[in-house]
Amino acid sequence: MIYLDNAATTKASQAAIDSMIKYAGEDFYNPSAGYAPALAVKKALGKATADIAELLGADSDEIVFTSCATESNNFAFECGVKNKKGNIVVSAGEHASVYESALRLKSRGADVRFVMPDGNGVVTAEALAQVVDGSTAFVSLIHCSNETGAVSDIKALCAAVKSVSPKAVFHSDGVQAFCKIPTDVHDLGVDLYSVSAHKVGGLKGVGALYVRKGFNMQPFIVGGGQQNGRRSGTENTGGIIGFAEAAKIYKNKAAAFDAKALREAVMNVFDGHDGVRINGRGANSGYILSVSFKGLRGEIIAHMAEDEGVLVGLGSACSTHIKSNRVLGAMGVDRDYAEGSIRISFSPDTTKEEAVKGARVILEAARRLGDTVNG
Amino acid sequence: MIYLDNAATTKASQAAIDSMIKYAGEDFYNPSAGYAPALAVKKALGKATADIAELLGADSDEIVFTSCATESNNFAFECGVKNKKGNIVVSAGEHASVYESALRLKSRGADVRFVMPDGNGVVTAEALAQVVDGSTAFVSLIHCSNETGAVSDIKALCAAVKSVSPKAVFHSDGVQAFCKIPTDVHDLGVDLYSVSAHKVGGLKGVGALYVRKGFNMQPFIVGGGQQNGRRSGTENTGGIIGFAEAAKIYKNKAAAFDAKALREAVMNVFDGHDGVRINGRGANSGYILSVSFKGLRGEIIAHMAEDEGVLVGLGSACSTHIKSNRVLGAMGVDRDYAEGSIRISFSPDTTKEEAVKGARVILEAARRLGDTVNG
Repeated sequence: MIYLDNAATTKASQAAIDSMIKYAGEDFYNPSAGYAPALAVKKALGKATADIAELLGADSDEIVFTSCATESNNFAFECGVKNKKGNIVVSAGEHASVYESALRLKSRGADVRFVMPDGNGVVTAEALAQVVDGSTAFVSLIHCSNETGAVSDIKALCAAVKSVSPKAVFHSDGVQAFCKIPTDVHDLGVDLYSVSAHKVGGLKGVGALYVRKGFNMQPFIVGGGQQNGRRSGTENTGGIIGFAEAAKIYKNKAAAFDAKALREAVMNVFDGHDGVRINGRGANSGYILSVSFKGLRGEIIAHMAEDEGVLVGLGSACSTHIKSNRVLGAMGVDRDYAEGSIRISFSPDTTKEEAVKGARVILEAARRLGDTVNG
Repeated sequence: MIYLDNAATTKASQAAIDSMIKYAGEDFYNPSAGYAPALAVKKALGKATADIAELLGADSDEIVFTSCATESNNFAFECGVKNKKGNIVVSAGEHASVYESALRLKSRGADVRFVMPDGNGVVTAEALAQVVDGSTAFVSLIHCSNETGAVSDIKALCAAVKSVSPKAVFHSDGVQAFCKIPTDVHDLGVDLYSVSAHKVGGLKGVGALYVRKGFNMQPFIVGGGQQNGRRSGTENTGGIIGFAEAAKIYKNKAAAFDAKALREAVMNVFDGHDGVRINGRGANSGYILSVSFKGLRGEIIAHMAEDEGVLVGLGSACSTHIKSNRVLGAMGVDRDYAEGSIRISFSPDTTKEEAVKGARVILEAARRLGDTVNG
């Protein structure tokens, strides 16, 4: 089986599984307890926090662990908007958890403005300038698109926002960027940054939110005061420690992996055929390739590919509950193409051989399905 | 080592660990994906949901999985209060995540009323009647106290609230009750009920909220629409499936375990000594015994016990970030005693022999520490 749906889930690394076994088994102690073995767990948790911080170019006290990036994004929106009267800016290409969080603020009366990504899925400074003004209170822009892999220049966009509205809070959803492209949050200049464990070989059920030092944010989940009161609830010790272990391994693997060359090779399979559209030829992480087939239905192509041993996604697994592909629509992809979209995604373990083979299977399936795909 | 801090964490069962290994490893698929192996994961998730529902006497579509009971409790307060103008009633003996959630509503201007537990830690109908009225919108009462094991008659209290204020929403924190005492939510009549995995042999990072059918609640965490839109975020498949497996095992073990007899035997060790107070002689789950030593400090006793091979807690691990024991204070325990409190807690794996031995070690430590404990 060729697995090309890594943007949704990457198989957990053995290191992450081993951490879970250790901290669910022999070292099951609650890190808030006072006895020695519990303090050892607390120390291991501190080490994991430092490791995740280092991978993000942050300090330990800037990391808050959550149950997933969806929680991190909700946290950012529910607690990061300080100026309730200012306007909120998000791109139309955000992950569902950001997009729905923005709509929730809008339903409460907030002035929410949407910036359109360009045809490649990238948010440009020009487009952003059209909606940001001196009253902008909060901006959230995805770093690397979970639909297309398109990378927006968060550092430049953040600086541009702050030059127009110095007190604006800048959040970025970095789930598909973390460990894949540079995500030094101090360099990016962002106030808030969301990441997820299970996209880098960690377990499901773990995420984190970077909160810039000095940015005093109220907690989203209150209670026993864990994590310095910033996120209550017994820490998911095995999950968090495994996240740090997995992320370090993933980042090392990613450094030795030429995702862009792989994506290029896969694009070459599709290029030159009529009725086939590559969604995004601009800046890209290299880990995701969105391709659309005119007049066809993506789910049928995916099922045909599965019968041939290739597993691919239609797009964000977090959007399977929604009918049309909002992100591709925002990029200007015609509905005629959008409904025939496939998301191919890679991990550092994906070989060029299997990726190219998988792409050929997908292309052949599309050809068999309809005469709109030729060449 | 004798481990008597099971109310904070119970060692994960092998079944829970095995589920995590399976769904983080070979069956790592995102349950929202469309291909066959992902659908198999989705099916296993549905089975786990049905199992947890059955253990709660509920239906599958009444279960929402969360990342922990602290999230469940926050969810209940943030999204379960429909009548924003009505008053909110909680006991002063609630877990920190309920208590802090209530204080958050109060800080936003809500009329929050506290009902005091009696000297045994139980909320009585008489005490509740003093604060509930026709304008009561939301009531949250802990089923089994995480500090003392005291059990309140939730069925009678819920009925009493609804007779005075028929539209009031009734939530109960059932974390320390689930799988230990009867928690048939339909029989209890509650609208919302919180439970946690890691208190019944599951992994940390998993909880659930029962939401009564027909009770249309807005989601706390929005995004990709997982769990029928009621809690977005990629499901923690291994954690949830392991929760169901662990809970079934725990409940079977608990059925064959006489917690009350064990607690009685441990109480006998402490009874009859001057300067020793048993906190709660009323209705009790049998799984927790809170005992206080006059004029002493609990953390020193706990450290001395640890040196002798006995691990006990001081109280809720979720309250170690807070200085005084609020719950014991609310029960009327003098500060002179409250600061010298130890929480002894059991699991179905605790033997009478080790529990009694552990209790003797604790008593001896207290005796050595100060001359206030005699007899």
